[in-house]
Amino acid sequence: MAKAPKNAISPTRAEDYPQWYQQVVRAADLAETSDVRGCMVIKPWGYALWENMQAVLDKMFKDTGHKNAYFPLFIPKSYLEKEAEHVEGFAKECAVVTHHRLEADGEGGLKPAGELEEPLVVRPTSEMIIGASFAKWVESYRDLPLLINQWANVVRWEMRTRLFLRTAEFLWQEGHTAHATEQEALDETAQMHEVYARFAEDFMAMPVIKGAKPEHERFPGAVDTLSIEAMMQDKKALQAGTSHFLGQNFSKAMGIEYQGEDKQKHHAWTTSWGVSTRLIGGLIMTHSDDDGLILPPKLAPAHVVIMPITFKADDPDAVLAYCEKLAEDLKQVTYDGQPIRVELDNRDIRGGEKTWGWVKKGVPIRLEIGQRDMADDSVFMARRDQSPKDKAGVGRQEFLDTVSDTLADIQNTLFERAKTFRAENSRVINARDKFENYFKGDKGGFALAHWNGDVEVAKKIQDDLAVTIRCIPDDGAIDDLLGGPNEPGKCIFTGEPSEKRVVWSKAY
Amino acid sequence: MAKAPKNAISPTRAEDYPQWYQQVVRAADLAETSDVRGCMVIKPWGYALWENMQAVLDKMFKDTGHKNAYFPLFIPKSYLEKEAEHVEGFAKECAVVTHHRLEADGEGGLKPAGELEEPLVVRPTSEMIIGASFAKWVESYRDLPLLINQWANVVRWEMRTRLFLRTAEFLWQEGHTAHATEQEALDETAQMHEVYARFAEDFMAMPVIKGAKPEHERFPGAVDTLSIEAMMQDKKALQAGTSHFLGQNFSKAMGIEYQGEDKQKHHAWTTSWGVSTRLIGGLIMTHSDDDGLILPPKLAPAHVVIMPITFKADDPDAVLAYCEKLAEDLKQVTYDGQPIRVELDNRDIRGGEKTWGWVKKGVPIRLEIGQRDMADDSVFMARRDQSPKDKAGVGRQEFLDTVSDTLADIQNTLFERAKTFRAENSRVINARDKFENYFKGDKGGFALAHWNGDVEVAKKIQDDLAVTIRCIPDDGAIDDLLGGPNEPGKCIFTGEPSEKRVVWSKAY
Ligand SMILES: [Zn+2]
Ligand SMILES: [Zn+2]
Repeated sequence: MAKAPKNAISPTRAEDYPQWYQQVVRAADLAETSDVRGCMVIKPWGYALWENMQAVLDKMFKDTGHKNAYFPLFIPKSYLEKEAEHVEGFAKECAVVTHHRLEADGEGGLKPAGELEEPLVVRPTSEMIIGASFAKWVESYRDLPLLINQWANVVRWEMRTRLFLRTAEFLWQEGHTAHATEQEALDETAQMHEVYARFAEDFMAMPVIKGAKPEHERFPGAVDTLSIEAMMQDKKALQAGTSHFLGQNFSKAMGIEYQGEDKQKHHAWTTSWGVSTRLIGGLIMTHSDDDGLILPPKLAPAHVVIMPITFKADDPDAVLAYCEKLAEDLKQVTYDGQPIRVELDNRDIRGGEKTWGWVKKGVPIRLEIGQRDMADDSVFMARRDQSPKDKAGVGRQEFLDTVSDTLADIQNTLFERAKTFRAENSRVINARDKFENYFKGDKGGFALAHWNGDVEVAKKIQDDLAVTIRCIPDDGAIDDLLGGPNEPGKCIFTGEPSEKRVVWSKAY
Repeated sequence: MAKAPKNAISPTRAEDYPQWYQQVVRAADLAETSDVRGCMVIKPWGYALWENMQAVLDKMFKDTGHKNAYFPLFIPKSYLEKEAEHVEGFAKECAVVTHHRLEADGEGGLKPAGELEEPLVVRPTSEMIIGASFAKWVESYRDLPLLINQWANVVRWEMRTRLFLRTAEFLWQEGHTAHATEQEALDETAQMHEVYARFAEDFMAMPVIKGAKPEHERFPGAVDTLSIEAMMQDKKALQAGTSHFLGQNFSKAMGIEYQGEDKQKHHAWTTSWGVSTRLIGGLIMTHSDDDGLILPPKLAPAHVVIMPITFKADDPDAVLAYCEKLAEDLKQVTYDGQPIRVELDNRDIRGGEKTWGWVKKGVPIRLEIGQRDMADDSVFMARRDQSPKDKAGVGRQEFLDTVSDTLADIQNTLFERAKTFRAENSRVINARDKFENYFKGDKGGFALAHWNGDVEVAKKIQDDLAVTIRCIPDDGAIDDLLGGPNEPGKCIFTGEPSEKRVVWSKAY
C-alpha cells in the first residue's frame, strides 16, 4: 500500500524546489500554461491576488502624484532603432507583426496577407512609444514634470518560461516620467525605488535589499538601474522591481525638448520603473510551505474562509445560518482599512478535500463550524502560518474582536520569518576561496563581499559560478546582515580597494 | 478684425458634427492619435474616466457572480479556423505575428527574423482562446456555471478610425460564461444585457433601447446578439454594448464538454458580452455641447474644481488657505456613496484660460473664489449643465450642505435632456415613402416601423438609404416612444405581417 504523503504538495521544497513551485501554483489554482508558447492563463485566484497588488500600488503611485494613461500596444520598428542599446537589449526577443489580415490559402486554411509597409513590434516595454507622446506634450518647463503610469501587457519572447517568473506575455505597470532637471529625475528614480521596497515589505511581507545594479546589469539604455532584491526559500535572489534613471538618452532619441525659463531649448531628463506579475512568483517562493501557498493577509483575496460542517448535524440549516450570520458580522470588521474579505464554502464535497483545498490556496484563517461549535457559540479556527494540525476553539465574539489583530499578527509573522531566513542564509565573506566554497554545487545564499567595481571580474564570476552581483546596496540596506555599517575594504578577487560590500547570489 | 467665437469649440455641432467631436476630444485632453496607424493614446483625463467606468462595471460583474481572469494576447491561427463564421468575421482585419525577433538587415536597420511555425493573431476577441481553457476546466456539471470576465486590449485592423469610436486597438472587458443548460445561458445573456442598460442609463445618463440584433447583424458565430442602442446628438445610433448567446457553436468548436448528472457527455452552452472604450465616444456625443465635454457626475474624474482668484487679493495666501480648507471639507461629503472628488487648480495662468479649460473638460461644478467671496464666507459657483455665464454666489456652508444634491440634479438633468432629445427625434412611421423621406439626405432619427423579418429587405434599405435595423426591441423597450405597447402590424416595405415595430436609424 502507498504511504499517505505527510504534506499536501509533492515533491516538497527539499526534494525538488522547481517542481514544488509548479505544484504550489497548480494546487492553489493561480495560473496555468496555455497552448500559446510561453503565454500563461492567470486563473481567478491568481488574478484576484494581482488585483489586490494593483490596488495598493496604484494608490501609492497616485499618492506620489502620478496619473494613469494608455499607449499603443505596437511600436514601429523605426522607433526601436533610435536608441542603440535599447534595441540591442530587446530585438532578440520580440513578437513582430508583419501582416494585417488572413486570407484563404487555397487548401482550406488561412495564410497571412496584407503585408505592412513597416513591421510593428509588440511592446516589450514602452520607453520609445511613450517618449514619442512626451515629445508632443512637452513644450515649456511649465509642462514638467510629466508623471505617468501605465498598466499593460507586454511581450518578451523568452525561450524558457516558468509561470509568473518568466513568461512571453506578462502583466505589469510601467511608470514613465520627464523632468526639467537631472536632480528631479534622480529624486523620482529614488522615490519609486522606495515605493517598491515599501510595497514588498509592508504588503507582500517580503524583505528586500535596495541597491543599484552594476553597470552590466542595467536596463538597456539606462544610466542607472535601482532594484529591490529578495531571497527565495531556495536561497536564490529574485529581482522584484526596478527603477531606472534614463538620463537624457531617451529624450535625445525621441526629441523630448522643452523651453526653459532661460528661453533656451533643453532636453528633458527621464525615468522609468516597473513591477510585474513576476511579483506573484516572488510572493509564492517567499512564504509558501510544503502544504501549498501562504498568502500575506494584506493581499489575500480572502482573509477568512468559513466551512460549515453540516453532514452530521441534526439541523444543517441552523448551522448554515449561524455561518452566514458570522460572515455578515465579519464583513463589518475592518483589517488594514478595509472590510474583512470572507468566503463561505458550502460546496457539497468531502470535508478533508475542502479543508486542504483552502490550505493549498493559502487563506490566512480557516474556520470549521459544526453543530457543537454552534451550541458553544464558538468557532474552530486554524491559521495558515501555523501547522494544519493546530486548530483551536474560540468563542464567536472573541474571534470577532481579535480577528483583525490575528491577521496583523500573521502578516508580521510572515515578514519576520522571511527576515530570519534571509539572515540565516546571508554571509559576510572575505576571501575568494571561501566565496567559491560557499556557492559550490547547489549551495549558497547571499554573500556580502567586497568588489573593486570591475565588470570583467563580475562577468568571470558569473561564468564560473553562475553567481551575480544582485546590487550595490544603498547605505544602511544590509547593515542588519552585516551587524554594522557597510565599510570600505578590499576586493576579494583582485585585492584592489572597494568602497563597500556588494550582494552576490545565484538568481532567477 | 476677427470676431471672437461665441463658443469654446469650433466648429459647432450644427456646423460640422464630426469635426466638433474631434475638437471636443482634443479640448478635453481625453485622447490623441499616435504614429501607429489606428492606435490611440488615452491621455490621463480620458483614462481616469475609463477607470471610473471600469470600477462601476467591475462591481456590477462581481455582484452578479463573475470573477476576473486573464488569457493570452495571442491566438493560434488554427484556433480561429475552428469556427467558420467566426473566422469569416475577423480574418479580414487582424494583426498577424509571424516572427519572434529582429536582426540586422545589413543596411544599418533591422528586419524580422525567427519565423514562427504557426502565425499568431493578436486577439480581436477571445472566444477561441478562452474556450480552450474552459475545455480544460470543465469536466463535470459541478464545474458549471463558469462565470469569467477579462479586462484587456484587443486589436481589429480597421481602415478608417476615429478616436474612441473605432480604433485598431481598444480597451474593453469581455465576459465569457459556460452553462449546463440552454436556459441558464439565455438567462445569463439577458442578465448582462440588463447590466449594460443599467450602467448606460444610471451612470452614463445615456438612455438606451434594449433589443435583439437582426440575424445579419449578429456577432460572428452567435445564435443571438442583444444590444443596447443610444441616440447621439446628430441623431445617429451608437451600439453601446452587446451580449451574445452562443448556443453550442463555440463549445463544439473548442470541445467544452461536461459529464451530466445523467453520466452522459454534453456540450456546454456559452455566452459572451462586452463593452469598450467606445462607450467614451457615446458619452461625449450624448451630453457635450458647443463649449466642450459635459461629464455625468457619477463618472466624472473630478466633481468639483476650485479656482482660487488670487492675483488681485491683498492676501493671496489667505484666499488659497480658504480654498484648501474648502477642498478638505468637500472630501468629507459623499456623493453616490463615495467622497466628493475635488481638483484645486492653483496654476499660474490667466483666469479666463483656466475657467474655460475646466468648462471644456466637463467638470460638473466649478467654483471661483476670490477675496470678496472669502470675506462673505461664500463661493462663486457654476454648473456645467447650465450656460457658462450662469454663475451665482452661494454661502459656503449652504454649498457644502447641497453639493451632493446638486450633483444628483446634474446627473438627472443630463439623463432627462437626452431622453427628451431622443423622443423629439424618434418617429412612428407607417409607410415606405414617409420612411424614405424621413431619412433623405442628412435627415432622420430613430424610425419605429414594422418589418416582416426578411434579411434581404433590410439589406436593400441599408444599400439604398444607409439606414439599418438597430434592434428588434424588447417588450416595453420603446413604449415611451410609441406612446403605448409595441403591437403587431404590417411591414411597410412588403405589406407582410410584422410581429412588432423595429428601430431603424443611421448609425456609427
Ligand atoms: Zn539638450
Ligand atoms: Zn453535445
